[in-house]
Amino acid sequence: MQWKHKHLLDVDQLSKEEIYHIFELAKSFKEINKRPVKKVPTLKGKSVVLFFAEPSTRTKTSFDMAGKRLSADTFSLAKSSSSLKKGESLKDTVLTLEAMNPDCIVIRHWHSGAASFVASCVKCSVINAGDGWHAHPTQALLDGFTLYSLGFEFKEKTILILGDIAHSRVARSDIKLFTKLGAKVRLCAPKTLLPFDTSTWPVDVFSNLEDAIQNVDIVICLRLQLERQENGLLPDLREYSIRYGLNYKILKKARPDVKIMHPGPINRGVEIDSHLADFERSLILDQVNSGVAVRMALLYLYILGTK
Amino acid sequence: MQWKHKHLLDVDQLSKEEIYHIFELAKSFKEINKRPVKKVPTLKGKSVVLFFAEPSTRTKTSFDMAGKRLSADTFSLAKSSSSLKKGESLKDTVLTLEAMNPDCIVIRHWHSGAASFVASCVKCSVINAGDGWHAHPTQALLDGFTLYSLGFEFKEKTILILGDIAHSRVARSDIKLFTKLGAKVRLCAPKTLLPFDTSTWPVDVFSNLEDAIQNVDIVICLRLQLERQENGLLPDLREYSIRYGLNYKILKKARPDVKIMHPGPINRGVEIDSHLADFERSLILDQVNSGVAVRMALLYLYILGTK
Amino acid sequence: MQWKHKHLLDVDQLSKEEIYHIFELAKSFKEINKRPVKKVPTLKGKSVVLFFAEPSTRTKTSFDMAGKRLSADTFSLAKSSSSLKKGESLKDTVLTLEAMNPDCIVIRHWHSGAASFVASCVKCSVINAGDGWHAHPTQALLDGFTLYSLGFEFKEKTILILGDIAHSRVARSDIKLFTKLGAKVRLCAPKTLLPFDTSTWPVDVFSNLEDAIQNVDIVICLRLQLERQENGLLPDLREYSIRYGLNYKILKKARPDVKIMHPGPINRGVEIDSHLADFERSLILDQVNSGVAVRMALLYLYILGTK
Repeated sequence: MQWKHKHLLDVDQLSKEEIYHIFELAKSFKEINKRPVKKVPTLKGKSVVLFFAEPSTRTKTSFDMAGKRLSADTFSLAKSSSSLKKGESLKDTVLTLEAMNPDCIVIRHWHSGAASFVASCVKCSVINAGDGWHAHPTQALLDGFTLYSLGFEFKEKTILILGDIAHSRVARSDIKLFTKLGAKVRLCAPKTLLPFDTSTWPVDVFSNLEDAIQNVDIVICLRLQLERQENGLLPDLREYSIRYGLNYKILKKARPDVKIMHPGPINRGVEIDSHLADFERSLILDQVNSGVAVRMALLYLYILGTK
Repeated sequence: MQWKHKHLLDVDQLSKEEIYHIFELAKSFKEINKRPVKKVPTLKGKSVVLFFAEPSTRTKTSFDMAGKRLSADTFSLAKSSSSLKKGESLKDTVLTLEAMNPDCIVIRHWHSGAASFVASCVKCSVINAGDGWHAHPTQALLDGFTLYSLGFEFKEKTILILGDIAHSRVARSDIKLFTKLGAKVRLCAPKTLLPFDTSTWPVDVFSNLEDAIQNVDIVICLRLQLERQENGLLPDLREYSIRYGLNYKILKKARPDVKIMHPGPINRGVEIDSHLADFERSLILDQVNSGVAVRMALLYLYILGTK
Repeated sequence: MQWKHKHLLDVDQLSKEEIYHIFELAKSFKEINKRPVKKVPTLKGKSVVLFFAEPSTRTKTSFDMAGKRLSADTFSLAKSSSSLKKGESLKDTVLTLEAMNPDCIVIRHWHSGAASFVASCVKCSVINAGDGWHAHPTQALLDGFTLYSLGFEFKEKTILILGDIAHSRVARSDIKLFTKLGAKVRLCAPKTLLPFDTSTWPVDVFSNLEDAIQNVDIVICLRLQLERQENGLLPDLREYSIRYGLNYKILKKARPDVKIMHPGPINRGVEIDSHLADFERSLILDQVNSGVAVRMALLYLYILGTK
């Protein structure tokens, strides 16, 4: 398939066919990651800039591994070490980076729309690694690929997204991906953690977890961003955990083969029972593993496929 | 040409011939940076330490790209992550680094003379990536190379350096380079931002921008280091911008084909009109692009040429 | 030799034979570090994670060089950039890292026992790069290798470890290594800087440096961690320096060919006279140089030898 996209800003840019094409490619790259020699020369001589204006372990390391295993050179810029400190605008920072002839800029930024803005400034490919509350397409693709790898048929399946939907770019991108692939999506959260505009979304919204979890095939727990707590923006954690935390008891109301997902990092004992995170039907670490393979596929397509 | 220098501390170490040799080499490396496969095996198995005791995006990333595109391994040390935190002296830090058999140490440090001091301690090559207010030879060389790439004849040309000369290592190294290549150099700044000793420099000094800009071929705007403002060390920004900021109106007094340069990061609307920075005759991004090529040439000469 | 260990947690896991096997391997890798092309393809396609939850220049850079010179890809995680900031547990961080298929995790952590805990969580190899006050096996091995390279016969030799033993993971691992190889070990420190349980250790303990240093072959000075001073946990530096600082005068009571070692970073004028650190019989920089070679040997054995 000739890849016709220059940038990956959100999953709604992608057709169903293109999403499955990414999954197929990721499947072959996943095999490479299991080999003794986890490296292919595919992107040798390509430069990938990892520009993370927000702190990140898993996503940045995942892209770094994806790039290096394809033999690309990677260049990490963190907010603290960057010219942002000296008051340089985002536009000037990325124009400067582009002038060094990178092949792809992977960007994470706290502003919704940052990736799209950067894409409008530069000529090289841009991959959105999370922008504000807006979108996190590579997370959605790795979530989808994790299920695809298990032989999951998206049609007729029901996926519940549970937790702080309002501030979650993961939820927004996941909803787009899963509904496009034909799954039914439910949301469940306390009202203060639900966006105002869910009535226009292709989802069913619940405020009671016991109702929401009935017969679902997948539960995706979202991270409660505890760092936002200081400002009084979060509910009481104990109360939240009792009413919305995922545990064995409530899980029994889902389908017997229900699987659990979480984009991480997890807060054990808050949004998810600690034992449940390590449960055999938890896919949390499969998601991380899938992440490297999906990002290899994306770097491959967005660097080589656009020529 | 057999390269006889071991360290690059400032441009006055270099003869005119050597400067043009660097430009010629950079020209061939610039071509490599445009290729689909931007990598040659020239410095394979060489170790380049990037020791940046001051924060930097463009210079550090530029050296990192230069090194990796020549297949060298690069090792980044930032002040925050280094033993400096534990009170180790600069001498001991660099002796420690040298004991690991690097081929070159690239150093940026807030102390004028730091690069020279480091060069006196170690046996491997040292490249000065900016030391205090003293020197920034790789910036001067990339500025010169940017003009050289455009077919610029330095003799008979007039270059204006505008802004905070007093605290600028870029200005000091640029003056040395441009006068050595035969250009006339003018300085323009409010008196508080001029060094005391300019009477001994081979330049014409102006305090009025309208006079200074008459018939110049190049204007190099310097960055106003806003981070120094808190201490009352900077002029009022609005007044500065009116009297010394570069804009379309004042630029008309220069030669019709005048070009604009800036070492970055730029403060749009302070030392340079925002639209002017994106102007077709702005060379700001060409400078960044030239930077990688010049640093490839320097790493090549200082690592392989000294053997 | 088939390497039967999966993790390197402390030197007491290793037999005398195995230690000498590491030394022999390090000897051949040390030669590679002197070559013009300091790179071999041994670990090509292997991924080494450098997870340093405590700041470090020398150890982290040393492992980074060791990995890259063996052609492995290295991935650095610092505490500040990691999910630890978001409150993720150590277990979840390393399980996440492991899910990305690394071949080895090198970990430094402020908690004694952290490396052992991590090893119990993951399936890949773990190398302890220092955990709290507990152990620092790669430092002990490079200390031993430094002496081995000089043709040092450990039997019948006496090694004095001087300074803040109580808080030193280096001292603990050095004692295990040197006594296993047959050397006699003496400790000397003010009582406040001695652990409570030294009576069970295979060492002779002195509180007077003049007695302790009689006829020793090696003095290992430990770093006084000045960052701990604020809490009143250190003795008066001047008094310490007079009574326990190493200088030329006191050194005369040792054997005439006594050698000096220090794990670094050194506090010149505190635990060691500044001139003495640069003295011809100081092995401090040899230790750093040995460090890269020993870590190449360890990465080789723990990544390839466990298959």
